[in-house]
Amino acid sequence: MEKQLQELIRGIAPLNETIRKEAVSYLDSLAKPVKSFGRLEDLAAQLAGIQETLNPKAEKTVIIIMSSDNGLVEEGIASAPQIVTTTQTINFIKGKTGVVVLAEHQGSDLMVVDIGINHDKKIDGVIDRKIQKGTNNIYFGPAMTYEDALKGILTGVEMVKTAKEKGYEVIGTGEMGIGNTSTSSAIMALLTGESLDKVVGRGGGITDASYAHKKEVIETALKINQPDPSDPVDIVAKVGGFDIAGMMGIYLGAAYYKIPVVIDGFISAVAALLAYKLCPASKDYMVASHASREPGYRMAMELLGIEPLVNLNMALGEGTGCPFAFYILSAACTVMNRMATFAESNIDDSVLFGR
Amino acid sequence: MEKQLQELIRGIAPLNETIRKEAVSYLDSLAKPVKSFGRLEDLAAQLAGIQETLNPKAEKTVIIIMSSDNGLVEEGIASAPQIVTTTQTINFIKGKTGVVVLAEHQGSDLMVVDIGINHDKKIDGVIDRKIQKGTNNIYFGPAMTYEDALKGILTGVEMVKTAKEKGYEVIGTGEMGIGNTSTSSAIMALLTGESLDKVVGRGGGITDASYAHKKEVIETALKINQPDPSDPVDIVAKVGGFDIAGMMGIYLGAAYYKIPVVIDGFISAVAALLAYKLCPASKDYMVASHASREPGYRMAMELLGIEPLVNLNMALGEGTGCPFAFYILSAACTVMNRMATFAESNIDDSVLFGR
Repeated sequence: MEKQLQELIRGIAPLNETIRKEAVSYLDSLAKPVKSFGRLEDLAAQLAGIQETLNPKAEKTVIIIMSSDNGLVEEGIASAPQIVTTTQTINFIKGKTGVVVLAEHQGSDLMVVDIGINHDKKIDGVIDRKIQKGTNNIYFGPAMTYEDALKGILTGVEMVKTAKEKGYEVIGTGEMGIGNTSTSSAIMALLTGESLDKVVGRGGGITDASYAHKKEVIETALKINQPDPSDPVDIVAKVGGFDIAGMMGIYLGAAYYKIPVVIDGFISAVAALLAYKLCPASKDYMVASHASREPGYRMAMELLGIEPLVNLNMALGEGTGCPFAFYILSAACTVMNRMATFAESNIDDSVLFGR
Repeated sequence: MEKQLQELIRGIAPLNETIRKEAVSYLDSLAKPVKSFGRLEDLAAQLAGIQETLNPKAEKTVIIIMSSDNGLVEEGIASAPQIVTTTQTINFIKGKTGVVVLAEHQGSDLMVVDIGINHDKKIDGVIDRKIQKGTNNIYFGPAMTYEDALKGILTGVEMVKTAKEKGYEVIGTGEMGIGNTSTSSAIMALLTGESLDKVVGRGGGITDASYAHKKEVIETALKINQPDPSDPVDIVAKVGGFDIAGMMGIYLGAAYYKIPVVIDGFISAVAALLAYKLCPASKDYMVASHASREPGYRMAMELLGIEPLVNLNMALGEGTGCPFAFYILSAACTVMNRMATFAESNIDDSVLFGR
């Protein structure tokens, strides 16, 4: 299975730089001061380079949600009981959760994947790729085997393949897994060497006592498991979760299948950082969405070198940031595809606009 | 006419705080960690308080664009010739400028107002409220009379009245006026006492020599005109423009007619700050959009105490930031109107989500 991952990574190329540059030239010919659309122009050019066309599109979009449980919740580090992972996963299909209403509002679809929920029930409409019924408790040992981490990554890749086949133009990442701000914080503490005071946030909202306990549990988990900081697969296997492994696979798959992929919040950014460490070229395919208020989010994005697009001070997960990025990407494509050039707009000389 | 403005200001009340608080309580009952939707919840509650309903709406939206010319362009401070104000105003109706394609993309309408273009031509589809054919050159004296500044403000109020009657749920501000980053910079230098090096940006894109010249011209304009920093009407009359006066009126009118109003970029933020100084309660009705890259923008927003929602590094004007805010407001309303409560989502106890 490790061989499969190596082959995948070898199959990933940077985006088409020739077409990206052609897109930049075209954007410069539009009737506006040069670069005055700022990052909207960068995004349009990035999509052009990824989709290998001067008419990039971001209309048909999907959020792939990885749901799984974390054994660590036994230590009482989460704000909600483990069953909420299952309940909310059901609600992604049947109910009106945050991501459901925002995705509907944007006209985006959801692909909900059970990659390791601690529940026997099969949920209609959820894609069953359960690896285990939740990870092991990282307070005592590794979350999963190295093999299972690879399996999680390849599951993410498979989901992107399906999304690509269904004609989606942009995908987004989402997750549901009570306890996953703890696993993500453990990974960020390892990768940054920062103190847990700086890295650990309050996740879904916890008390002061729980917060101190959360940090102690993460510290122990890192000490016990000693993940190899140079091996992202080892990191996710030792102190991560199936959701994070699956999302790593989404980023790698997006790069492999040449489809832009949106980073949601904290957990999603950590998975993006691990994917980037496995394969730096995968970053070309990533687009930020909102600035999560979890402290580890900003650290992960700084290491990735990607700035968020929207500041809404959200900390909900599920993929709730993705619809905002989809909208902005769609607006960027509209500028590229619909706006008049100087020639078309009767502004006689493009020099007039300060070029 | 001054009496009319005083009456208008007396007619402005803060938003309905009782309904805003009811909205906050309702948002807390939704199936998510408390406040996890961050500013999306603040915006939904703000709209509820403004529109005086627990089902706020932001679907029917319009950008009111104030087009006018600035006599100051004679000093060669702008990146484009004055005729571009007219050309682009025509293109708001007939062409595909930046704001046109982004407004279409969002399903927003435009109301384009000639409040002082230096051109005799009547443009079909443009609302003719021309006060003068451009302002006087502020390098030598005041931009306009005090009476004309009041007239500009009341024109903005009138446009909001029309928009309200047409059923728009949210309005946005936009402008077109070659030279208006200079007038806006003069106003910000006056209000902040900061050096022109810090306040003045490069507008639509100018050379180093033009940049130095732009600062010198603004400095002289402030020295010659000596606007009264405590009187926003005097400020806009002495060193402002018809576009800024008109936008001041849009903010005041929005507060008077209880309709949320979106701040676009630099010029729009300066007008918002002047409206706020005339009537602090008008701030309750304001919503930010994107963070313009003009340095004076951030200064104005800091004085207003409002944070932008989107970071796209744009500096185009026209109202191009408004569609992004309309989208986010619409998403905020969707969360409020469509998301399930704890009771509806089978999450047995709302305490589970950390409240």
